Amino acid sequence: MTAIQDLSKLCVHTITTKPWSVEEAAEAYSAAGVSGMTVWRDVYADRDPQAVGAMVRGYGLQIVALCRGGFFPHATAAGRQEAIEDNKRAIDEAAQLGAPQVVLVCGAAPGQALELSRRQIRDGIEAVLPHAEQRDIQLAIEPLHPMYADDRSAISTLGQANDMAEEIDSAHLGVALDVYHLWWDPDLEAQIERCGAADNLLAFHICDWKTPTTDLLFDRGLMGEGCIDIPLIRGWVEAAGFQGFHEVEIFSTVRWDSDQTEFLEEIKQAYLQHV
Amino acid sequence: MTAIQDLSKLCVHTITTKPWSVEEAAEAYSAAGVSGMTVWRDVYADRDPQAVGAMVRGYGLQIVALCRGGFFPHATAAGRQEAIEDNKRAIDEAAQLGAPQVVLVCGAAPGQALELSRRQIRDGIEAVLPHAEQRDIQLAIEPLHPMYADDRSAISTLGQANDMAEEIDSAHLGVALDVYHLWWDPDLEAQIERCGAADNLLAFHICDWKTPTTDLLFDRGLMGEGCIDIPLIRGWVEAAGFQGFHEVEIFSTVRWDSDQTEFLEEIKQAYLQHV
Repeated sequence: MTAIQDLSKLCVHTITTKPWSVEEAAEAYSAAGVSGMTVWRDVYADRDPQAVGAMVRGYGLQIVALCRGGFFPHATAAGRQEAIEDNKRAIDEAAQLGAPQVVLVCGAAPGQALELSRRQIRDGIEAVLPHAEQRDIQLAIEPLHPMYADDRSAISTLGQANDMAEEIDSAHLGVALDVYHLWWDPDLEAQIERCGAADNLLAFHICDWKTPTTDLLFDRGLMGEGCIDIPLIRGWVEAAGFQGFHEVEIFSTVRWDSDQTEFLEEIKQAYLQHV
Repeated sequence: MTAIQDLSKLCVHTITTKPWSVEEAAEAYSAAGVSGMTVWRDVYADRDPQAVGAMVRGYGLQIVALCRGGFFPHATAAGRQEAIEDNKRAIDEAAQLGAPQVVLVCGAAPGQALELSRRQIRDGIEAVLPHAEQRDIQLAIEPLHPMYADDRSAISTLGQANDMAEEIDSAHLGVALDVYHLWWDPDLEAQIERCGAADNLLAFHICDWKTPTTDLLFDRGLMGEGCIDIPLIRGWVEAAGFQGFHEVEIFSTVRWDSDQTEFLEEIKQAYLQHV
């Protein structure tokens, strides 16, 4: 595994520095030498996505992806249709921003069987895929940790994401791999190899799993703070042919309550030392 | 799926009613019509296990298992040896109690690779298995939810537990299946069938996954409070040939803070309605 030499593949998700506006984030990421930004939808809720995209690029940052579409399963047909419409809007927004990819957090409905949610996810992706193809936006299925299987994603493993991407089989559909969700999986190396071989490996998200973890959602660690062997997984990802950005996606109330400029500096150092 | 008709297979883990002493628990379970008790080691820390076993059986309760052995991985050889000695003590205690089974929470060491922890688990089981065979105690590998892969179990899926039980291949080694840990797994039905076919399905633990779950350890739900389709999984377990107890194992600070007699009554009703 070659050590990380520079920041040319370092991308930061806007949610990682949630207290900042997108303008503050763009200026700070750029000043810090970060190369890419993945934009969460909340940061442009009251702004023109096209202007936001131009602003971010004006700081020399590449827009890597839009987070997030998905959440296809619902108990009602109306709910599922609304999810499809919302995903089409996300695809339109990605095109306006100049983001080549929409990450899909696929969803789950606590009151229904996982198998049914999985069928609804597949139906939802197939319903929005022509829209994505038309705008040349890639959709990335992100398998989420099994602790989110109740209400965030009925797709819990890379194996499931690979299955779905291969079955639907579109050049505009692939997989986003987040070490936080998948590090525990005994089948991870083989599934990464498979994902790359099928040309479906579209994104690599990084953070760390803290011991102990005190909150299911908002206690992610900075790289090096936890138990995930990120260089090992990066090696597998690169061996599978992935050459894209390394995207830092950290939800942490503790970090959000801290000075964001100092946090960004810590992210840089952690990236150079622990990825 | 045939509905549960009576309490003849209802077992409660002493940890479920943690505020009670083992004497209080035995008396209350018996009065409530519960049929089995799985004994956690803390309840007899300052008592003679043989006397505790006789006391529990005196209330007409069957002792189903001892919780728990395991925690084999450690960074040091001394730590691993101490774990082996502790597991031998647990086996001795099970024999004294009259518990036919020791449940293994296999362990993990946050500072080391999961693959290494898995090898240490296998080495640990093989080291204590002759002791278990000599005392005719069954060891049950319990795969734990992936959110515990950092420090509680490097064995996260039923597939992994099946692999290990089949590779070691002893009549005194099998698997304990807890719906809380495994409900999300897309491969669950097939792995339950495999587990039964190999004669390795030794225990069936039940509770529920609450949405939202507010604590990684101590926020388990009563059956029916969450999103797990327990009757579906019970059907798979029974189709795989399992005819043993249905063991209620709930860690819940909210429930522990409540009246335990009322809680036990709720457990009975939930068992009859949602299992």
